[in-house]
This record gives sequence, structure tokens and C-alpha cells, in this order.
Amino acid sequence: MLAVGSGGKHLEEELRKLGGDLVGIEIKKFPDGEKYVCVSGSPREATVVQSTFAPQDEHIVELLLIADALRENGAEKLRAVVPYLAYSRQDRVTKNGEPVSVRAIMKTLGVYYDELYVFDIHNPGTLRFFPGKAVNLSPAKAMAEYFGERLGDGIVLAPDKGALGRAKAVAEKLGLEYSHFEKERISPTEVRMKPVDVDVAGRNVLIVDDIISTGGTMIRAANLLKDMGAEKVFVAATHGVFAEGAIERVGKAVDELAVTNTIPTPVSKISVVPEIVKL
Amino acid sequence: MLAVGSGGKHLEEELRKLGGDLVGIEIKKFPDGEKYVCVSGSPREATVVQSTFAPQDEHIVELLLIADALRENGAEKLRAVVPYLAYSRQDRVTKNGEPVSVRAIMKTLGVYYDELYVFDIHNPGTLRFFPGKAVNLSPAKAMAEYFGERLGDGIVLAPDKGALGRAKAVAEKLGLEYSHFEKERISPTEVRMKPVDVDVAGRNVLIVDDIISTGGTMIRAANLLKDMGAEKVFVAATHGVFAEGAIERVGKAVDELAVTNTIPTPVSKISVVPEIVKL
Repeated sequence: MLAVGSGGKHLEEELRKLGGDLVGIEIKKFPDGEKYVCVSGSPREATVVQSTFAPQDEHIVELLLIADALRENGAEKLRAVVPYLAYSRQDRVTKNGEPVSVRAIMKTLGVYYDELYVFDIHNPGTLRFFPGKAVNLSPAKAMAEYFGERLGDGIVLAPDKGALGRAKAVAEKLGLEYSHFEKERISPTEVRMKPVDVDVAGRNVLIVDDIISTGGTMIRAANLLKDMGAEKVFVAATHGVFAEGAIERVGKAVDELAVTNTIPTPVSKISVVPEIVKL
Repeated sequence: MLAVGSGGKHLEEELRKLGGDLVGIEIKKFPDGEKYVCVSGSPREATVVQSTFAPQDEHIVELLLIADALRENGAEKLRAVVPYLAYSRQDRVTKNGEPVSVRAIMKTLGVYYDELYVFDIHNPGTLRFFPGKAVNLSPAKAMAEYFGERLGDGIVLAPDKGALGRAKAVAEKLGLEYSHFEKERISPTEVRMKPVDVDVAGRNVLIVDDIISTGGTMIRAANLLKDMGAEKVFVAATHGVFAEGAIERVGKAVDELAVTNTIPTPVSKISVVPEIVKL
């Protein structure tokens, strides 16, 4: 049985279409700002689908309230599917006095949930903070299906070496070449990006990343590829955490921009729902 | 050492004045809506002061982030002072499928905090959901000090029998008479409130409650007391969760309205800070 919170509403229709068995949930906000939740049905096992984009903290608290209601109604096993996990980039102490914020969220979800499923988390190592079973799902298959035909015999690139695994996963599904950008210091103050060991001239390129926020890196990478003679440049990311105006800026710099629907945006054209219903 | 979050900022100056030793905390919001927290200092024991009025869920998540940072910095014992605890009125299942929302909040705070201190919680029985030591503090002394002189040899009243303990606590500090209102059905559709076993004619009256939201009950009670010949009518409440326009409506119906500063409002004239620094 699936229970869908406010952060999963945009996936509800497709979840139902693909055969998901949904529990009804009433969710409202009291005039003072407190959330109210009421679930219909008392499944012994339930999967709560709730992405935690903005307002992040409301979506997080809702996950707890829904779980409390399900437990109250007799649920013995609860799984949280959190396609986009808020605070996942706050994954280490970079300055003394900071929290590892994603740890706080993981530990909190562990109070009620036995299992946690996320998509393409920024730092998979942080899954160890969740006390139960935690799984990092991949949108690579969906990305490959979406861009495969358009890409032809093109190349899949990661914006940096750390993200290479993501590009590799997409490329391998399509039997394509893959590589990554690296930074080259050309003067004490200037850094240039360049793709490593591939010739992009005359070929289509797909750049794959986990999160796009300002889109600055993607725009620089796309411009560089065009300068190097690339044919078409596509950009795919799992989570579209777009800053104001970023969709337009990236959209202008590339031939197509598409992200998954872990966060609902105007360019969330790649669906992770098939992976969710498989669980 | 005290650490004050955004929900305690309005108490910070008084906490410092009354001798509180404060850890600095930087709190900001990233453009995508995520909170960022950074604490200065690494106390072995710390008390985090954070009320959880609106935006409730942000204040709750902040409590977790601050605690994670303090633990990361070596804190062995953490106390949460949450003057107003959000979700405390969602304390039972009134309709099948509802959560006991306050339980979810208590259990969540229990992940990081060893002790929890709240003021005048709606249902003290819910403190059992907190896994550590949980204490319900009383604002009775502060209320008695604030209204004592104005009240003279007046009467302290609770709006219903369930709230009598609160009126009693204030009255006993002042050596005054106390009682409560009760509802009397005067026709199948009409209910009238009346104070039990006290004669209010010619005397000052203080009505004491835990929360004022719409203020409807307080206004009805005040009008009734005036009709019965009461001299001055004062209203005190611990938590001013005022609905739009409620301060003005209650203010007009009574001689003075004052709430504590568990929630900052224009009528938060009674301070709970002396109780906090005593902990």
C-alpha cells in the first residue's frame, strides 16, 4: 500500500496508473500553521512517498505525522520513499560548529521508518546515518530512455570526476562512450574546464549531474562543448533544485534540458515513478 | 551554556541580562529554503532554547540541526527548552486515521535531547512520549506577579473545570479565591457559561487559560462577568496563538489582556525567562 504526502502529490496520478495501491490521505494546514493529517485504511505494511523539496521542513514533519498515523492504525512495517532528500548536500562539517544536517534528517526518519529509499543522493555514504535499511535508487535507466534516441552515437559526460559513475551508468545502458570534465588551471586566477580523452567535434553530448541549482557549471560546460564543435548538447539531472531564472539560463545554453520528477519543475520530463512501483 | 535558536531570539536579551551564558549561533536560510546552522563553542552540556510557534516545522527542524552540531562538537548532555511546543493540541486520535502528532514531535526530539522542558503544555500526559526526562513548567508565579496588584482581593477563574488547576496555582500565590466556569444548557440549542460558587459582583476577576486562539471563549466569559457586575476583568494566558484580529477583539472585551512570551506577540507582557534561567 502506498501513502502519498504533499511532497508526492505530483507523482500520484502516475503511481496509480502504474498499478500502485493508494491509501487516501487528508492533509491540511490549521490557521496557526500546524499540519493536520488523516489516513484512510490500516495497512500492515505501507510505503510513504514524499519528496522533501521546499518547503522542506514541512515535508519532513509530514513524513513523521503520516508515519505516526499509520503506526497508530496498526502498521508493522513502514518504508519511506523520499525521491529528493532535503539537506543531502549538508553532508559534512566544512567549518567547525556545523551540523551534519543530513544525519539529523536520517536519524529522525529512523524513529518511524524501517526502510528508506532515495534517488541519487548527493553523498551515498550518508545513508549509513539511517538506522535501518537505506537504498540509493538510480534514475540512469529513465535518463537513458529519455535521451537515447536524440543522443544517437553521442557521448555522455559528467561535470567532474566524482560524478563519473552517474555518466557511466547512463552510457552503459545505451552502449555509448563516457567521460568527465576536469579543471585545468591556465593562470593563477583562471580555471578552464575540459572534457578528458574524448573528441566531441561533430557529436551529440549529454551532460549528466545529480543536482542543478544555479546551472553555472552546466552553462560553462555547454558553451565549451559548442566551442569545441559538439553537434547537440543535452543536459540531464536527477534533482532540479533550480535557483531563480536557472531553467531559462540553462535552457538557452543547451539544446535540451530535462530533469526527473523527484522535484516537480517545468522541465521534470523524466519519471522515476516506474522505479518506485517496482519496490 | 544556553544556545538560542530562531524561536528563542525574542528571549535572548533577557536571558543574557539574567545571567545566561550564551553560545553564539549563526542561523540562515539557503536560497532553496534549507536552514543552515553553525554554533560557536563546544560545551559539554548545553540547553537549547527554542519555542516552536509558526513556522513550527522550521523551528522543529532547527532544534535537530542545532543539537546535531552541538553533539558533533562534543556535547554529552542536551536539554531542550521549548516554551511553546507545537502540535501539543493534537494530543489524541479524535477520528480514526489521525496521528497523535505531539507524540511524533516528542519522539523526534528524543533522538537528540536528554531532557525536555515545556511551559504549560495542553495535555501534560503527552510528556510520557518523550523518551527522556520531560518537565512541564508553570507560568503561574509570573502571572501572579504581573496581575497581583491590579487584581487586589479579586477572584481567579478558569474557563472550564479542566483548567481549574491553572487558576488555582495563580490564586494560591496571591492568597485569593478561585473557581471555574461551567456550561449550563438553557435550551436544546443554547448553552450558557456561568462561574461556579463565587459572587463576582463589585470584584475584579482574572480569567486564566493555557492558549488563546480565536478568543471566543474569553470574550463570552468577560461579557458575562461584566453583566454580573464584575468590576474589572483581566485575561491571562500562557500561549498567545492568536488568530487574525483576536488580540483586538479580546482586548476590547476586557480591561487588560496579557500573555507570556512563550510566543512573541504584542501582548506578551509576562516573561517566562526567570523560570528558564533557574533550570
